[in-house]
Amino acid sequence: MLNRPITKLTLYGDQISGNCLKTRWTADYLDIDYDWIDVSVVEGGTRSDDFMAMNPSGQVPVMRLPDGRILPQSNAIILYLAETAGGDDLIPSDPFKRAQMMSWMFWEQYSHEPYIAVRRFRLMFQNMAEDEIEPQLLSRGRRALGVMELHLTLNEYFVGSSLTLADIALVAYTRVAHEGGFDLSEFPSVHRWVARVETDLGIGHARKVA
Amino acid sequence: MLNRPITKLTLYGDQISGNCLKTRWTADYLDIDYDWIDVSVVEGGTRSDDFMAMNPSGQVPVMRLPDGRILPQSNAIILYLAETAGGDDLIPSDPFKRAQMMSWMFWEQYSHEPYIAVRRFRLMFQNMAEDEIEPQLLSRGRRALGVMELHLTLNEYFVGSSLTLADIALVAYTRVAHEGGFDLSEFPSVHRWVARVETDLGIGHARKVA
Repeated sequence: MLNRPITKLTLYGDQISGNCLKTRWTADYLDIDYDWIDVSVVEGGTRSDDFMAMNPSGQVPVMRLPDGRILPQSNAIILYLAETAGGDDLIPSDPFKRAQMMSWMFWEQYSHEPYIAVRRFRLMFQNMAEDEIEPQLLSRGRRALGVMELHLTLNEYFVGSSLTLADIALVAYTRVAHEGGFDLSEFPSVHRWVARVETDLGIGHARKVA
Repeated sequence: MLNRPITKLTLYGDQISGNCLKTRWTADYLDIDYDWIDVSVVEGGTRSDDFMAMNPSGQVPVMRLPDGRILPQSNAIILYLAETAGGDDLIPSDPFKRAQMMSWMFWEQYSHEPYIAVRRFRLMFQNMAEDEIEPQLLSRGRRALGVMELHLTLNEYFVGSSLTLADIALVAYTRVAHEGGFDLSEFPSVHRWVARVETDLGIGHARKVA
């Protein structure tokens, strides 16, 4: 399946992964036509010989261009998609605002995803009990949500006054944070921002709003 | 000291941090004039009230523009510096090559720094013994170096045939990986690339070459 002929842009990803869903949402938002190929992390799809030949890091998502060129890393993929297909849509034209967007995207991968997404993975897909999970995942995930709450108390979006790639990157695991044992009702501005971004992206609510 | 009048671009950082040194090297390479203000992670400088007011995430480096605007995150800072001061220097003009550079920069923060930099921090600055350190820091750090070795066996730089921000991001902790207990003699192409990038940046060797 990984080796079928490529005629258009292809996204390889796992539907349980927020990092992978980012790439779908961005492509859909920008009306980019693509094939989606499921690669299961839990079932070892990212460690197969075929997949590792494509991305030696063994990580999804991966984007494959029609000419065969490969790009891994969710935030690099959505940046490429928006830069090449969207003009200024999703990326601020002002250099400093663009830098702020990049800053939040790096922060997401360093200070948010490793705690919130990983704790969700432990609970939902590795079937670990709360007391088997590294305690710092909870404290650092809560810290990340607190930083977001502080920002979103004063702002509707992470950069400027409309949706950018920073919101797409950050919403991916924030909207399912409850599956990692985080209670968004403690972070009301974050909670409202999740609904706002879901509406902008035209994606369903991941949970009932309290 | 944090509150002294700002008349030019200011970089707040800790000299022991590769993430912080990235911003210095990039500014120096691009001949950007700046003030450097030391903020010690180990001595709690990043958790002071003054610092947290500037960056609620409590992380260095932080860039401050003369007008007071603040930008955290090392890779976002070097991207901003190169975009605004360097023209095409350090950033490929081709969109796909630029995307590859971004991909490596996100990979660095997600799959390299959390293992190689953190293990170095445990050993050098928290004075932990090898057997007190989470074992996965060694295995995953070695895995990251293996991915780099695979790429650098066939390429002189991470993207294209000259220095980009991807090399600056990745060299920061790779050049001091031995301080984290990683043996670069097992990764000879990485070892040679470190020397190449140090020469390009005009910075001294962090270790004697074997």
